[in-house]
Amino acid sequence: MQCFSYLEEAALGRIHEASLEILDEVGLIVRNRKARDRFARHGARVDEASQRVRVPPDVVARCLAMVPPTITLRGRDPKFDVTLPRRLPVIATASSAPDIVDPVSGVTRRATSQDIARISHVVNELDGFDVFSISVLAEDAPDGQFNLSRFYPALKNCLKPVRTSVVDVAEAKQILKLGELIAGSAEAFRERPFITFGYCSVVTPLTMDFDSTENLMFFAENGVTAYGTVAPMGGINTPLSLPGMMVLVNAEWLATMCLAQMSRQGTEMIYNFLPVFADLRDGAYAPGAIEVGMMNSIVCQMARAYKVPAGGYLGLTNAKVSDAQAGYEKALSPLLGAVSGVDFMVMGGLLDALMSLDFGQLAIDDEIARMIKTVRGGVDFSEAALGLDDIRRIGPGGIFADAPMTLENMTSATFMPDLADRNLRETWAEQGGSTIHQRALNKSMAILAQQPNRAALPADVDARIKAYFPGIVAGDSSLPEGWVPFDTGVQAPSRTRRQTRRRRTAR
Amino acid sequence: MQCFSYLEEAALGRIHEASLEILDEVGLIVRNRKARDRFARHGARVDEASQRVRVPPDVVARCLAMVPPTITLRGRDPKFDVTLPRRLPVIATASSAPDIVDPVSGVTRRATSQDIARISHVVNELDGFDVFSISVLAEDAPDGQFNLSRFYPALKNCLKPVRTSVVDVAEAKQILKLGELIAGSAEAFRERPFITFGYCSVVTPLTMDFDSTENLMFFAENGVTAYGTVAPMGGINTPLSLPGMMVLVNAEWLATMCLAQMSRQGTEMIYNFLPVFADLRDGAYAPGAIEVGMMNSIVCQMARAYKVPAGGYLGLTNAKVSDAQAGYEKALSPLLGAVSGVDFMVMGGLLDALMSLDFGQLAIDDEIARMIKTVRGGVDFSEAALGLDDIRRIGPGGIFADAPMTLENMTSATFMPDLADRNLRETWAEQGGSTIHQRALNKSMAILAQQPNRAALPADVDARIKAYFPGIVAGDSSLPEGWVPFDTGVQAPSRTRRQTRRRRTAR
Repeated sequence: MQCFSYLEEAALGRIHEASLEILDEVGLIVRNRKARDRFARHGARVDEASQRVRVPPDVVARCLAMVPPTITLRGRDPKFDVTLPRRLPVIATASSAPDIVDPVSGVTRRATSQDIARISHVVNELDGFDVFSISVLAEDAPDGQFNLSRFYPALKNCLKPVRTSVVDVAEAKQILKLGELIAGSAEAFRERPFITFGYCSVVTPLTMDFDSTENLMFFAENGVTAYGTVAPMGGINTPLSLPGMMVLVNAEWLATMCLAQMSRQGTEMIYNFLPVFADLRDGAYAPGAIEVGMMNSIVCQMARAYKVPAGGYLGLTNAKVSDAQAGYEKALSPLLGAVSGVDFMVMGGLLDALMSLDFGQLAIDDEIARMIKTVRGGVDFSEAALGLDDIRRIGPGGIFADAPMTLENMTSATFMPDLADRNLRETWAEQGGSTIHQRALNKSMAILAQQPNRAALPADVDARIKAYFPGIVAGDSSLPEGWVPFDTGVQAPSRTRRQTRRRRTAR
Repeated sequence: MQCFSYLEEAALGRIHEASLEILDEVGLIVRNRKARDRFARHGARVDEASQRVRVPPDVVARCLAMVPPTITLRGRDPKFDVTLPRRLPVIATASSAPDIVDPVSGVTRRATSQDIARISHVVNELDGFDVFSISVLAEDAPDGQFNLSRFYPALKNCLKPVRTSVVDVAEAKQILKLGELIAGSAEAFRERPFITFGYCSVVTPLTMDFDSTENLMFFAENGVTAYGTVAPMGGINTPLSLPGMMVLVNAEWLATMCLAQMSRQGTEMIYNFLPVFADLRDGAYAPGAIEVGMMNSIVCQMARAYKVPAGGYLGLTNAKVSDAQAGYEKALSPLLGAVSGVDFMVMGGLLDALMSLDFGQLAIDDEIARMIKTVRGGVDFSEAALGLDDIRRIGPGGIFADAPMTLENMTSATFMPDLADRNLRETWAEQGGSTIHQRALNKSMAILAQQPNRAALPADVDARIKAYFPGIVAGDSSLPEGWVPFDTGVQAPSRTRRQTRRRRTAR
């Protein structure tokens, strides 16, 4: 398989060189004193008065040589552990929306820890997703348990790798304690740390804030699995061009990488971005734009040059409901990333520019994720696959429906969707004339109706957690009596003229 | 730009060799006597009793060397002429659906010549489409004017290249006469033949029927712009594997190519397919499947090896309404084709597995087409685009919104959608909480409301046509009084909690 790519080798080299020039000449503002000291100790030039850190090319090169080519994300169940790069992209849900489309009322409201439990339960059962990046915030979080109220219901209901960000090191320690309680001991957790943290390493342009930087160093020093995301807004805090954004965020990633390697040589990394351009007609944040996919394609090229896994926030949409816009925005950037060789993508479940999760969209995105993997799975080319003997034997005007190759592979040769409607119009209309969103919402709710969640933590472990963290949220995915998903509406009149399907010999 | 591709050189060579073996050993059934004679005269082995034609490799090689590397499709206005390959893919509407979603009632019904006039008017104004491939059939066609009733309203209302198929040579002659009447004379039309014909060259597997083959020869002999499409259904009439389908349809295309070159050396060709696999759970025709895009990727590789433009039916959907399924099925295969280097794609307007046109979907597909072109437009890499001076000048924590590069390129640096919603949720809700389908339908109808159509044929030309073809359909795109597009429905309750957009520092 040959990846799609935009840039020549020379252009990649020029972006690298230009980023080095920026790091060396312009440098970054680093607000964390400990980080400045660390940069200084490893050869960067630091000006304390302006908090400016300038990193010479040789320091960058030395750190870059320390970056391992892989990263492993672990699940509560080891069978879900993933090491990237692998042949297929690793696909995660998108995270940290404040809101959720209530699956019963259909109204968008603030999300809670119980929503997280339910999303986690569903994500555990959707094969397209390899990683549960915690989709929403928890408005009901007790004081002092902000992200604990997210990690706990997530980990309780899902065996796959779970990840999201924390505010500060104190929170990170709380979450790691949760991991130890689940694992049974600190040693057991250290052996298989099944929690992954995210952090926003740099505020573009060229600024490392206090807490995120402290987190980065804490994760690296302690060998805690974590990776950063740089999230620029082109035209606002980067130049308004794809190469210009790339130069700037590449410099920012290199700075992040340096500090991580200075904190512990060999710290695992992902070359990971959420590269959005503003819609400058009104300044709107446009993560659904095609440029996000185009930028990710360049990101993949740079990551390959650096021999580090490529990641990206893809498949985001500005649509408020799961309409055709949501459909194509969800499809375009993940596919563009996939054909460009992306190793990791965060893409599932969110609507409205990362503002809300929708259970229907979550199941639709799972189906898109599985198609993306089908594309990356490649084409099995072999002499047998050519089917030459069958073509010879069956000949002109013949039929292949009962050939052995057909019978053996009839449900494996092509992708078999659960949600995409392929019925005749009459059948579709007789079955209610639904949109895919209704079918998808029903699928998520059917998963949730399977109670108790077979993936849930054992009762004794759960009791241990509840005893250790008094007042912790319930974290159950259970449903109230009589729970019925909302009617997502039909887009067109369901009346339809009776019609027969006819094949046309020419178009 | 480096294209995405699945196969190694050796695999392409093997597909070519295997196709040659099939043509030489198995051959095709050719039902048209004149075609058999022509094959025989040029070195093929013909068995009259079985109508079997076997084409030796040296004959194929000789014909292949005659194929020109380009093809030109002409419009009524020369400014719309396109010669492919060009940098951007040439994008056409999809054609020949029997039905239309009535834009007033929303009910799906048989299409008429007046629908064609209206679609043509809209397509003429949608910049994403380079070619109007006549979207629907005309139920109201008078006897003896079946495709005249499609070409006339199409040509009357659109300055872009217009194409579709005809049943037989008599029909083709009628359409060519229409072209002459529009051009003013036979000579003027011959100089700029602005009509393109399609034909289904082969009924898979390996059968050339009478009329299509007669058409093919007629078009080639007379230098009429035309190209064929092979439309297999994998697992039914080809082996159930991508390479197996490719071998078979490649043999079929090579046979088509041979007959075209035998009819007139240098006949322009497109390496063009509609490669659909059946969903073998129930035999459903699945043009929305991801495999259509994957097959097209291989098609693009083969076409490059043959130095002939690559084409494909892409962006088709099985969805009955313009929901998220329509959105992602419309997006995935066109993008996969585009990154694989496709030169020509037929993708716009149809729902329900090529059964019906929808005016809303047409405008949505125009927006997708323009995004596909943005992807293929590439990344402008230059020293200026790196914006290094701005990055140096603006520095850490600065803002690029008022940089000269931003101000100069604010509406050109990124794709500016017309239909994709990027508003805040509150704004979207206040404006009615529409789906993109409603906005798209309204856009098409707003185009149609501009009457008379500025692209319409001059009255004297039109009078000439009406005089020559008594009883011909009206062909006008005008609207009845009080025409209002139907309400496509809202997918989710429009009530929404008041919420402020907040940026999160970490995900």
